[in-house]
Amino acid sequence: MRVSYLVRGPAAEIDARAEALALEQSVEVPRAAVRDDFIEKEILARVEAVVPEGDDGHRVTISIPELATARDPAQILNLVFGNSSLHEDIQCVDVELPETLLAALRGPRFGVAGFREVAGVADRPLTCTALKPMGQTPEALADSFRVFARAGIDVIKDDHGLADHAFCPFEERVRACLHAEAEIADETGRRSLYVPNLIGTPDTVFRQLAFAQENGVRAVMLSPMLLGLPTLWDVCHRRASVPVMAHPSFAGAQRFAPELLFGRLLRLYGADAVIFVSFGSRFDAGRERCRRLADTLRESIPGVLPALPVPGGGIGVATAARVAAFYGRDSMLLVGGDLQIEANRVAERSRAFVEAVRAAG
Amino acid sequence: MRVSYLVRGPAAEIDARAEALALEQSVEVPRAAVRDDFIEKEILARVEAVVPEGDDGHRVTISIPELATARDPAQILNLVFGNSSLHEDIQCVDVELPETLLAALRGPRFGVAGFREVAGVADRPLTCTALKPMGQTPEALADSFRVFARAGIDVIKDDHGLADHAFCPFEERVRACLHAEAEIADETGRRSLYVPNLIGTPDTVFRQLAFAQENGVRAVMLSPMLLGLPTLWDVCHRRASVPVMAHPSFAGAQRFAPELLFGRLLRLYGADAVIFVSFGSRFDAGRERCRRLADTLRESIPGVLPALPVPGGGIGVATAARVAAFYGRDSMLLVGGDLQIEANRVAERSRAFVEAVRAAG
Repeated sequence: MRVSYLVRGPAAEIDARAEALALEQSVEVPRAAVRDDFIEKEILARVEAVVPEGDDGHRVTISIPELATARDPAQILNLVFGNSSLHEDIQCVDVELPETLLAALRGPRFGVAGFREVAGVADRPLTCTALKPMGQTPEALADSFRVFARAGIDVIKDDHGLADHAFCPFEERVRACLHAEAEIADETGRRSLYVPNLIGTPDTVFRQLAFAQENGVRAVMLSPMLLGLPTLWDVCHRRASVPVMAHPSFAGAQRFAPELLFGRLLRLYGADAVIFVSFGSRFDAGRERCRRLADTLRESIPGVLPALPVPGGGIGVATAARVAAFYGRDSMLLVGGDLQIEANRVAERSRAFVEAVRAAG
Repeated sequence: MRVSYLVRGPAAEIDARAEALALEQSVEVPRAAVRDDFIEKEILARVEAVVPEGDDGHRVTISIPELATARDPAQILNLVFGNSSLHEDIQCVDVELPETLLAALRGPRFGVAGFREVAGVADRPLTCTALKPMGQTPEALADSFRVFARAGIDVIKDDHGLADHAFCPFEERVRACLHAEAEIADETGRRSLYVPNLIGTPDTVFRQLAFAQENGVRAVMLSPMLLGLPTLWDVCHRRASVPVMAHPSFAGAQRFAPELLFGRLLRLYGADAVIFVSFGSRFDAGRERCRRLADTLRESIPGVLPALPVPGGGIGVATAARVAAFYGRDSMLLVGGDLQIEANRVAERSRAFVEAVRAAG
């Protein structure tokens, strides 16, 4: 496993820091305390490259023996950016996994093609919106679902803030939205995809997932960084029989390069569709970084399905066509609050969004 | 619930940014899309204070209605620092919870007094070390345990890098170390506390915990930020009957103020003892911040037990007395690699560590 970091600081210290990084991310003892041949050869990480990058930094690449990972999803993350994350001047920027570890993590079970199939959209960018704001009853949210579904939006997901509230219990919400999904499918002949938000401790999330699947939900969403990447893995590879969308809540707090976290790690852990804050939103995300992030989600990795990029974060109806053209066909546009900005024009704005993306595809 | 953030940027924009923060962390729609009385009163967050702080920043405090949290551990975190974490110029610096949410999170089940009782140390700072480096067999680690236990170290924990490796399976390691624990207790009349590291996806961690408890383990450790805070909560409040230590791996990547994350959040979620990187270590942690962090862990919160500060990160035997004096009686010193730096003097260095802390207490 090769991991790269950007390390800020004086060039005079960089070789020592690179060695310290390799120790910290593997044996976590001073070099003098590594006295065993097996540990030196099979456990100790090695510095592979130190290259100047930017004004005051270096890119340090280390290789960590596969044996140290125990092929466990949590331990892999521990070795990638465990203790070294505690140094404020280190950012983790790249991870390359050998085949054995790709096979251990497994990646998406559905990926782009599988997600498309579930959503029933073959050959253009997908459209997505969120049921919000929080505070509405299940019936009110199901009514919003009807408006969006009639307008032809492909994927209609819970806002990531919809939890198991007394005023909107998870199970009632799922039932009401699935009912609306079937009703509008009968009416229009087109079935939008309802995606509930799973949130809670692992016991709660596993219970919500089981309920959703038993009741016919065809995809689910969760926030992997909030719940923990290992929980994402269990959901994807031990529990879910439907595609999983990843929401970025809490993820910005991580000192990972966004391309790495959203582009590679979430996919490797199993997310089929990954929401990220895009340019053209209320978040300050550069186009080049967005391009790399989306490309990384879809790039070819042997044995690992591609995952669907879902740009969001406040994209407006007016800019949807431009954003769709930027990300290309294998993407899903998420427009949320902007559909609801005028009380009496939600259906109209939703149709405009749908048409803009269809035209772009 | 009141949450405070440091927001960098021009003073002219701060009022608008504070309002945007309150929207982002609650309804997550434009203000114009909030049209319902109930949502406006019971869900929408409000700006409580905006105060200049530092050269180019402000401290923004918002209040988030308790109803929005659903009293769920994951949803609380979502509302504290969900989407807003995606803005790189925002740091979350404080959280104040009302009684209802303190009761929902519950905090430590053992806390300082309970941990002391399990470790059998009444009235001085505790000593702690780690079994490492990774790469050793269970028997080799158990032998290290014997050396440390004979030297009188109170708490001997797995390194956070010890997973369920083929060369050192979790179950064999736990059995071997518990055997060594009992053996040295018979020999010396003093029982050191063995603390295994739980690591993996939730299913794996729950299974490891069950095995450890069935076999007589009296405390466990995990890395909450690596596994996810919601997993910490399930372990503490639905699964564990023994105290839980929190390891900081992966946590530095969070854009939380360290005092908040290590001092308050981990305690609120249930950690009984919290390891953090201290001054006097190989990490760059200022004394004042360490002081606040330790004070926060031990400060009085009605209905919530205090948690034990565990300064670590590379403290040396030579500085242990000074560090112990700094943190005071209710603390546990963690010295790891420095005990092992000379192959033939591990026992001697361990005794020197124990004596230094005993003298300081």
